Amino acid sequence: MVIAFKELQKDPKTRARLGEMVTPHGKVETPIFMPVGTQATVKTMTPEEVRDVGGRLILSNTYHLYLRPGHELIRKAGGLHRFMNWDGPILTDSGGFQVFSLGPLRKVEEDGVRFRSHIDGSEHFFSPERAVEIQEALGSDIAMAFDECAPYPCTKEYAMQALERTTRWARRCKEAQRREEQTLFGIIQGGMHRDLRELSAAQLIEIDFPGYAIGGLSVGEPKDIMYEMLDYTVPLIPGDKPRYLMGVGSPDCLLEGVARGIDMFDCVLPTRIARNGTVFTHTGKLVVRNASHAQEFTPLDPECDCYTCRNYTRAYIRHLIKANEILGIRLTTIHNLHFTLRLMDNIRRSIKEGTFWEYKEKFLSRFKMD
Amino acid sequence: MVIAFKELQKDPKTRARLGEMVTPHGKVETPIFMPVGTQATVKTMTPEEVRDVGGRLILSNTYHLYLRPGHELIRKAGGLHRFMNWDGPILTDSGGFQVFSLGPLRKVEEDGVRFRSHIDGSEHFFSPERAVEIQEALGSDIAMAFDECAPYPCTKEYAMQALERTTRWARRCKEAQRREEQTLFGIIQGGMHRDLRELSAAQLIEIDFPGYAIGGLSVGEPKDIMYEMLDYTVPLIPGDKPRYLMGVGSPDCLLEGVARGIDMFDCVLPTRIARNGTVFTHTGKLVVRNASHAQEFTPLDPECDCYTCRNYTRAYIRHLIKANEILGIRLTTIHNLHFTLRLMDNIRRSIKEGTFWEYKEKFLSRFKMD
Repeated sequence: MVIAFKELQKDPKTRARLGEMVTPHGKVETPIFMPVGTQATVKTMTPEEVRDVGGRLILSNTYHLYLRPGHELIRKAGGLHRFMNWDGPILTDSGGFQVFSLGPLRKVEEDGVRFRSHIDGSEHFFSPERAVEIQEALGSDIAMAFDECAPYPCTKEYAMQALERTTRWARRCKEAQRREEQTLFGIIQGGMHRDLRELSAAQLIEIDFPGYAIGGLSVGEPKDIMYEMLDYTVPLIPGDKPRYLMGVGSPDCLLEGVARGIDMFDCVLPTRIARNGTVFTHTGKLVVRNASHAQEFTPLDPECDCYTCRNYTRAYIRHLIKANEILGIRLTTIHNLHFTLRLMDNIRRSIKEGTFWEYKEKFLSRFKMD
Repeated sequence: MVIAFKELQKDPKTRARLGEMVTPHGKVETPIFMPVGTQATVKTMTPEEVRDVGGRLILSNTYHLYLRPGHELIRKAGGLHRFMNWDGPILTDSGGFQVFSLGPLRKVEEDGVRFRSHIDGSEHFFSPERAVEIQEALGSDIAMAFDECAPYPCTKEYAMQALERTTRWARRCKEAQRREEQTLFGIIQGGMHRDLRELSAAQLIEIDFPGYAIGGLSVGEPKDIMYEMLDYTVPLIPGDKPRYLMGVGSPDCLLEGVARGIDMFDCVLPTRIARNGTVFTHTGKLVVRNASHAQEFTPLDPECDCYTCRNYTRAYIRHLIKANEILGIRLTTIHNLHFTLRLMDNIRRSIKEGTFWEYKEKFLSRFKMD
């Protein structure tokens, strides 16, 4: 195990905790939100900008990089860090979620998944061994086991099959691992069933991973169900291991996830909605491309101190987006990532000061998600 | 007149000269290349990035800003500088070239030009007075007179009519000027005819402008003809006035233009080809999106010290462009503007050192344009 995780402090009123994770590319504090750099770039941003808004650990997608430009090319480039000029830690997913999302373009077998590229329709095969090999070529700090993410809704029988396959695949991933500088996390599945989550956690903990992700959530279920899953899944994970909630990143879910003991998050939401002209503010979402903002010479969020809010008005940003100018979505992306990462800063600070519960309640009382 | 121009030094072997222009938003050295920010943004870049690559004076387009977001909105925002967060000088064109480029969408009358918006087909009318009024609302440091740019090729009769109308309109522009902080340049027309260029220059100089542009070049004619036009048009302009060659910006044309006494240039070429995946190098153009660069782990131009070339490889940039990632065209834009503005730096330095001719010959002996 090459990452070291340490719980530094517990919140008295919730399961929130402050932690520290040491990786081959530096130390990060948890709870942490990971900006997503699917194709070896956090969309629209330079690595310096990602760092400026507070990004420390980023996520990149194995499925996409395998298809384009190809993991062997990235290996030749000296690995993903050098290829994309990011010297902080990187987590790669396994490609599992992406290939399952392909729907009719993929076929699950016991050995792995056969699928067609969304780019050119060419045929490919991912097995647990292949997913590890590709992630080793990419050279990420944290790799994820190849899992089967059951859709929502699905039968309990299907969820059971998927979690058991995920366990068998997780074991094969661990055995396939060769690269010592890389840490492999297991992924707990089990759909929306408490007993299946318990079974999945028990099986994976028996294999013993240096970190555990909770997969199969934020796949369309109501938020209350997700929170309930977290309530009884997180306590199953050994306290000395980092807990990663995959694909979750709206401000309310981050706060509720931290309160339930989650240490790591990733999500495309802040960057994706930014490119559609929607931004976070302390009172909720704002659709800056709407005509109502055309003559507003105020920042996106008057309480924000990001580069965008310090220098530009809603009127200007709306103009840029309406005129299809790239600077527009650069500015909204900077703002949304800054907003999200600043929220994580405040969460960590409030845990340190013992005021996390109060911070969370105050934030959520003002922030209207939809 | 609110800008002050001073010739500082003459090149002994050519008409090249070093100058200084003082504007309400600071002093710039000439010869200068102006990056183009058509829609109140130099495409893909922040103002800080424009400055970092060496941009000092930028050009923005009256026609585009009039249509979207509207000059009255920009006036309310406190002018174009504040709206776009650029504190250096700005030159606005008059919209003349753009409305004439609309072809069947416009109709020329003695009073002005009736045209339809390329965005929504709505009908509009630009007169010399209107072009001045709009530019005053934008609040640029240098405004351009509303002119008629004859197409290439065209009959001498048409070129004659266009230049005489340009003169009448230039007089009306000067009379319409109200804003003291803004300088108005006249535009010399006359097609590819020496006698018409002489006539146009004489008429405009009689009106007396603080600066003169040479319009109607780089409209499709061979470069030799453009250089010949410059050879006999530039000497007609009083030596104490800045001379601006509109719409020209390829490296070879910049060197040849400076050699013929041009002080100011603007062109979308460096930024436009960057967005198509083509970059300048010291040996000529390079189409980095081509497959032949897929595994080249070298900078775009090994002799370049821009942000892009210091941090990224051709392989990575090609990947970004193929994957439609915005960072790709950000990096090529930074490189091409840096390349162009560094060329202008070197031109000014060589004039100062009395080695411009040698610099130009050496540069052009290596650089193959096409």
